[in-house]
Amino acid sequence: MKTSEAILTRRSTRVYSDRLVEQEKLEQVIEAGRYAPSGGNNQTTHFIVIRNQEVLAELARLVKQEFSKMEETPGMYKSLAGAIRRSKGETYIFHYNAPVLILTANRIDYGNNIADCACSLENMMIQANALDLGTCWINQLKWLNENAVITEYLRPLGLAEGERVYGALSVGYAKAGLPDRNALPRTGNPVTWVD
Amino acid sequence: MKTSEAILTRRSTRVYSDRLVEQEKLEQVIEAGRYAPSGGNNQTTHFIVIRNQEVLAELARLVKQEFSKMEETPGMYKSLAGAIRRSKGETYIFHYNAPVLILTANRIDYGNNIADCACSLENMMIQANALDLGTCWINQLKWLNENAVITEYLRPLGLAEGERVYGALSVGYAKAGLPDRNALPRTGNPVTWVD
Repeated sequence: MKTSEAILTRRSTRVYSDRLVEQEKLEQVIEAGRYAPSGGNNQTTHFIVIRNQEVLAELARLVKQEFSKMEETPGMYKSLAGAIRRSKGETYIFHYNAPVLILTANRIDYGNNIADCACSLENMMIQANALDLGTCWINQLKWLNENAVITEYLRPLGLAEGERVYGALSVGYAKAGLPDRNALPRTGNPVTWVD
Repeated sequence: MKTSEAILTRRSTRVYSDRLVEQEKLEQVIEAGRYAPSGGNNQTTHFIVIRNQEVLAELARLVKQEFSKMEETPGMYKSLAGAIRRSKGETYIFHYNAPVLILTANRIDYGNNIADCACSLENMMIQANALDLGTCWINQLKWLNENAVITEYLRPLGLAEGERVYGALSVGYAKAGLPDRNALPRTGNPVTWVD
């Protein structure tokens, strides 16, 4: 797929089919993430690729449990408030049941940690779209990246002591019959020219 | 250019030719940035596109001046320390004299400000590479985004009261005769599989 098409047609996928993601495609997506730039060429973004379904189910259970202990507060970031609200219902599954979840972690004492992870996530979203895979940015494990229950669960999976999760990506095939995937025209994101 | 090629061959350009960037190409790069995802589809990334050379020269002078007042401290992020050190020399120009500098600003009270700007910057880097343009992530205006001298200079250019700069991008044609632009293989950015 042409670069411009891959960028302009990417949109978030929140309903996935059961179809497994081919190993070769998944590796291509991760490699795209690894080739994102990093501050001072630091290369400390750590990709934790979870496709063990029992692990994903347990992680989903823990995320729901930990959010349901929290309360919305005035002025809270609306997406976080929405996650807390939905976690108190029956059906909340933070990763939309995608067959693969890729966590991007980085060092807590590194000034570009969030930005580097975001660049890697963006590269993976674009590459996945070019391979007809759907993705959705998942922020819940960033919001919970100091939560002891979640952290203790992630440590044995590979999250190092000095690392925190700064973003994640659900990856899979979109369920058949979803509306046209083209992204909607942008109404925000204004541009100011200084000529 | 194919998506995978645009992602895997992108590397930072730090020496630019004087050749101007065509309007159509620049608009395509910015549109790629505008189509990046945002938290809760917030779309508050603000692109300030500077190609007025007097403005760029004055901004470069002010950035040098403000960094040269600062001192390195132990444990400081190495790229920031490097900027402070180089700013005390004669030749420091933070944007590498690229003909275009695109600032990405966002609201200070918005939880995904850094991540959204980073996704937009990454999209612009990939799209620019596909159009044979060189780019380099520029962090100086993020590091100085609470600096009064810089902020007062950026306000009349369009930076709103509640906004801060969270990243920037130099854009232009790479100077002829630079080494092969292919990115170097990644030695860091480790991958952990949870199967």
